[in-house]
Amino acid sequence: MKLAATTVRDANLTQLELAGLDAEVNVADGHARQELSAGQQRIIDHLPELFTRAASRPVAELQRAAHAAFFEVFGQHDRPRQPDQVLSCYSSSVAMEILARSLVREVDTVALLHPTFDNIPDILTGVGLRLLPLEEDVLGGGDLDRAIPPTVGCVFATTPNNPTGRVLPQRRLRELADLCLARDLVLALDTSFRGFDVRAHYDHYAVLEASRCRYVVIEDTGKLWPTLDLKVGLLVSSGNVGLPLGLVYSDLLLGVSPLILVMVERFALDAANGGLDELHDHIRRNRELLRETLTGVPAVTFPDADSRVSVERLECQGWTGSEIWEVLRARNVHVLPGRQFYWADHARGERFFRVALARPHRTVAAAARELRQILSS
Amino acid sequence: MKLAATTVRDANLTQLELAGLDAEVNVADGHARQELSAGQQRIIDHLPELFTRAASRPVAELQRAAHAAFFEVFGQHDRPRQPDQVLSCYSSSVAMEILARSLVREVDTVALLHPTFDNIPDILTGVGLRLLPLEEDVLGGGDLDRAIPPTVGCVFATTPNNPTGRVLPQRRLRELADLCLARDLVLALDTSFRGFDVRAHYDHYAVLEASRCRYVVIEDTGKLWPTLDLKVGLLVSSGNVGLPLGLVYSDLLLGVSPLILVMVERFALDAANGGLDELHDHIRRNRELLRETLTGVPAVTFPDADSRVSVERLECQGWTGSEIWEVLRARNVHVLPGRQFYWADHARGERFFRVALARPHRTVAAAARELRQILSS
Repeated sequence: MKLAATTVRDANLTQLELAGLDAEVNVADGHARQELSAGQQRIIDHLPELFTRAASRPVAELQRAAHAAFFEVFGQHDRPRQPDQVLSCYSSSVAMEILARSLVREVDTVALLHPTFDNIPDILTGVGLRLLPLEEDVLGGGDLDRAIPPTVGCVFATTPNNPTGRVLPQRRLRELADLCLARDLVLALDTSFRGFDVRAHYDHYAVLEASRCRYVVIEDTGKLWPTLDLKVGLLVSSGNVGLPLGLVYSDLLLGVSPLILVMVERFALDAANGGLDELHDHIRRNRELLRETLTGVPAVTFPDADSRVSVERLECQGWTGSEIWEVLRARNVHVLPGRQFYWADHARGERFFRVALARPHRTVAAAARELRQILSS
Repeated sequence: MKLAATTVRDANLTQLELAGLDAEVNVADGHARQELSAGQQRIIDHLPELFTRAASRPVAELQRAAHAAFFEVFGQHDRPRQPDQVLSCYSSSVAMEILARSLVREVDTVALLHPTFDNIPDILTGVGLRLLPLEEDVLGGGDLDRAIPPTVGCVFATTPNNPTGRVLPQRRLRELADLCLARDLVLALDTSFRGFDVRAHYDHYAVLEASRCRYVVIEDTGKLWPTLDLKVGLLVSSGNVGLPLGLVYSDLLLGVSPLILVMVERFALDAANGGLDELHDHIRRNRELLRETLTGVPAVTFPDADSRVSVERLECQGWTGSEIWEVLRARNVHVLPGRQFYWADHARGERFFRVALARPHRTVAAAARELRQILSS
């Protein structure tokens, strides 16, 4: 597919993902493209029966079952139970769009985690919001009260973060929630990569509900399971959030497919039944494969030693990430450059690039071999 | 499910559809909820194989095949062939959101068909566009040049229209396109209900391309086939449209599910192979059923005698549509009131309500019986 933007430096990350969609070795996008496990294949084998089931049950019931299975496997027990507080969207980006369109009616400026995937700042600014970068180190351990000026109406964080894998720990989430309550800020979290890291499986909703702050959480089933992008983004909010989320939602959709709800339930139950361990194992092995193949190549290091998410950030010396993107693309291998993740300071991202790990082992192995060859020369 | 807005008069149509989603007799929303035909059931029976196929083919190829099958069965031969001119979205409303967000960067005011389904004006105004109503009679045969003031940057029409079923004829589309070219307006069409009416199967793209005007068309697979809302909205545009559609698209999605693309292809091929006639027959029989059951009830008439779309507008005397909605809801029967379709003049819509026809015959029969009982009393 043609790349819409002129160069790798002008394109946004999704445009670069699109350029690599059908590539021989696509380790660009963060979608789940590993092979189905045996348990998952059994679910797919029963799609006709699941279709019949989905067509015959009330949507409210399918929704409750999907939400329960999904939240429980990731430890999110104290989530809101009112249907209008858990809105099922086509994707996490559609949930993000609904949040942004709701937020801009009440808020001028958002303090947004830096770096993070660029469609988050693009959606927020696209509807007219102003952004202030909130550095990952500051979010992790700095003086939040000082870092967030009074003009800010919402704090937005991705946890685990994409691309760094950094998790907001429970104690820090509590501090952040308390600050948001004290200053009447909306606390917004994108937890799309939570499934990959058990350190992010503490009950976020217990913390958020206890704080009584106004909050929104975007959950995502789309990064985890190779369901060919049949997925749901969940837009979860506190009872006191004070944003017209339900109204904007109703402008965009009546609901997601009942079949997708049934699939989410079944894949979540499979995850609870051993599938999640298999997934963690798969990602861990792909991460090791990548790191081991590149051992002894001085031009590249792995800055996120502790990351468990399904993407890996690499730091390079003597190359920019954009250059690596270009050279790999000429070999029909697609990664993402780091530049665009640093939405407030592109130059700082130039020494990074990102490799997706939710792939068959052979795909990651092929990408690692090509990288080794290029970076060793 | 709880109705988010306070009353039937304050709610938007989608909120009212949500209230009726799991009702005993739901003839509210316009989604396809009839039973699968035998040919369609055979496609569903093969979902596991289609999943495998979708996982193993390049997305660009699946997309081309889905688009070709869909456009061809509805006579749209001269559509654009560049991939970035036919964007596959999660739904027609998501395509609409992308159009609105792109349009607002270039245009202040949109002349929008009146009446039409209210999420179109809500999405347009939701991103900051101003609206001017363009009456259906004026669009059909009035002085367009006079009706569209110089402040307008885009003309938006739904054809066939929802809820009236009115089709923009070929000659009139040509006049409209010529006017848009002469005044450098963007011509936007929503053709989501085209599939139901062969009078809307003339090649719109032949007209639009010949005119050389800047155009956008929103196509929809979601109203036709009972695929449990596994569907695609297509955002089609002229090469000269001059709007950042691809960029805004990339903020919201990388692409739709490959499995849905394969399903669209198969359902479209089934339609070409006799399925479309079956569908037209099914809707025609449901329309007759509704009209015949209400024959001799003086409180109700059918203003859109010639309509072939999958929704039917009813006009009532002695009742408002909102009152009928209330009385029916108490009996667990859900329709849509007419008020909200008349987005620029709610009062004018009060004498109407809408009944969905893409349902099993028994559902329409049950709704018709209840209506007869209420309106005869």
